[in-house]
Amino acid sequence: MTTQRIRSFLAERRPEGPCLVIDLDVVRDNYRTFRKAMPDTAIFYAVKANPAPEVLELLASMGSSFDCASVPEIEMALAAGAPPARISYGNTIKKERDIARAFALGVRLFAVDAYEEVEKLGRAAPGARVFCRILCDGAGADWPLSRKFGCEPAMAVSVLEYARHHGLTPYGISFHVGSQQTDPDAWDSALASAAAIFGEMAGRGVELGMVNLGGGFPARYLNDVPAAREYGQAISGALRRHFGNRIPETIMEPGRGLVGAAGTIKAEIVLVSRKSDTDQARWVYLDIGKFGGLAETMEEAIRYPLLTEKDADPHAPCIVAGPTCDSADVLYERTPYALPITLTAGDEILIDGTGAYTTTYSTVAFNGFSPLATYVI
Amino acid sequence: MTTQRIRSFLAERRPEGPCLVIDLDVVRDNYRTFRKAMPDTAIFYAVKANPAPEVLELLASMGSSFDCASVPEIEMALAAGAPPARISYGNTIKKERDIARAFALGVRLFAVDAYEEVEKLGRAAPGARVFCRILCDGAGADWPLSRKFGCEPAMAVSVLEYARHHGLTPYGISFHVGSQQTDPDAWDSALASAAAIFGEMAGRGVELGMVNLGGGFPARYLNDVPAAREYGQAISGALRRHFGNRIPETIMEPGRGLVGAAGTIKAEIVLVSRKSDTDQARWVYLDIGKFGGLAETMEEAIRYPLLTEKDADPHAPCIVAGPTCDSADVLYERTPYALPITLTAGDEILIDGTGAYTTTYSTVAFNGFSPLATYVI
Repeated sequence: MTTQRIRSFLAERRPEGPCLVIDLDVVRDNYRTFRKAMPDTAIFYAVKANPAPEVLELLASMGSSFDCASVPEIEMALAAGAPPARISYGNTIKKERDIARAFALGVRLFAVDAYEEVEKLGRAAPGARVFCRILCDGAGADWPLSRKFGCEPAMAVSVLEYARHHGLTPYGISFHVGSQQTDPDAWDSALASAAAIFGEMAGRGVELGMVNLGGGFPARYLNDVPAAREYGQAISGALRRHFGNRIPETIMEPGRGLVGAAGTIKAEIVLVSRKSDTDQARWVYLDIGKFGGLAETMEEAIRYPLLTEKDADPHAPCIVAGPTCDSADVLYERTPYALPITLTAGDEILIDGTGAYTTTYSTVAFNGFSPLATYVI
Repeated sequence: MTTQRIRSFLAERRPEGPCLVIDLDVVRDNYRTFRKAMPDTAIFYAVKANPAPEVLELLASMGSSFDCASVPEIEMALAAGAPPARISYGNTIKKERDIARAFALGVRLFAVDAYEEVEKLGRAAPGARVFCRILCDGAGADWPLSRKFGCEPAMAVSVLEYARHHGLTPYGISFHVGSQQTDPDAWDSALASAAAIFGEMAGRGVELGMVNLGGGFPARYLNDVPAAREYGQAISGALRRHFGNRIPETIMEPGRGLVGAAGTIKAEIVLVSRKSDTDQARWVYLDIGKFGGLAETMEEAIRYPLLTEKDADPHAPCIVAGPTCDSADVLYERTPYALPITLTAGDEILIDGTGAYTTTYSTVAFNGFSPLATYVI
């Protein structure tokens, strides 16, 4: 999957130490694929997935909107050329002074899932549009979400009503079907809940206008156009089923789906060892691990493809670990990886599909190691 | 536990945003407590626990040695005034060029647990002293370690023999009984293994000289002088039992034990909410979470004391979560915390015992949030 552009860059520049290389051509292709698969849905790129300025600038120039988790992310989106009208402050957990700063920067679209948040918005962002996030069960997702975000649908009605009483504009519903969602029908039950809330609010004299379909679009299906189209078809089918001919404005918040496949991390094998002279399993230690950008290997949830120059040699199972003195810094152990038996210290290794949730997850300086370097080409 | 000096600093300076405050008086007391409890054992402070320059300078001035995980940590220890002879490169996973840099900086003591590592050291650090880390079962530890570091004791003999053949000085054995080890007798079986290896090596004509007792000394027992003494007594008893009257030089590598109790994080409640109108459980969201420095709440392994100004009010169980748009950023859910029912957004909260493994674990900019600020007083 590593693109030829990334391979050429690495061959020519030979950067020292572990680094992520992002190929903007892949981001551009992914954005177009999404546009084509879901032409009636506005894309709000989840900035947290990868806030590299070049990525934000490309997407802003292509007309993308931006889902921001904090004021610094809003400032990055604005700096990349996005007008405030194309920015959503999508974090349901915001300090009142951060809401005020976002409002001062022109942002008028905010997520909520609780009464106290509505009160803060009423004071700091008068008149703004708010959408209420509802809980979803996350079935079918590689990484189902916790109950951290969202409220029960019945409470969402009260929250939106509360928002109206606090001088805000109740605008819609959001949900998230879980990360790396592999079932295109996963949106169906959430859209049924959203439609019920629209009906309930209409009965109270409030016309909601928008459904935020969230993220969850898997990274590895992205280059596969029919699959992206399948998501589009399943979602538009569900919209028709539940909203009839009063289909609301829809937005979506892909992050991983836009940038995951665009990135490759170049790393190095630091040590290959065994725990005893008769041990069958090798331990392969890399110069990047959980604290250097691969936090999403937590629970071994995401298994990145690993590529070496010795891939033609015979393979055998390995435990793969990072370079820090932290015993939790083990990437893959429960389901070992097959890697070439000829691997030795100093060999280069490519970790594919690492464009999302890597650079910003890297620690400041754990064990003295530098944060992950990024090159955008 | 938050010291009066920390409380006064926070009251006077009122720093904006979450921050860690370290009270050097506590570090000083802890160091003295360890010296007194184990007067014959050299302290190699585990720099990774908290590399703040003021902490390193204090410890260097008190005569501490330093256990370093990387070249940048070695450079920090040197900058703090430690001579190279008081530095151990304790990471078993090292690039050959990093070994060479450490050797050039004067470091002559290195950890190994594998043949390939010995080969690198033989080339890049000729003549250096090496100690071999052996595996331990970690029973009794709040946070038992994985098998990432160390080899089986039988292999350690071969590794040390291999080191001799590669022009290195086989110097000793190290092990780690697990983090937050609450059983002072946990060192016994590891010392039995170490003594057996000493005997085996002596039979091959190699006199080992040192046992590295590792870390694992729990943070919260530290202010409790008899308890620290208990560890000292248990360990020196085990040394006599297994080594007779040929007791080797010993070193230990406390990190958490020296700085954990010295730090308090000041944070803020961002939101208090429920998931439905009938929900009994409140969610309390802080402006710091797993990605802002509280990585050790992983698996809810470490439960930090939480203090608020409303602690005299009635309490009820809460789920405690961080501020990011990551559903994994939940600190305590399986075993909820009792917190005052009067808590609201904007209230300050102190997170105690957070002097170790917080600042450096914090992410570079996940969700756009800044890394954890530190003040050393």
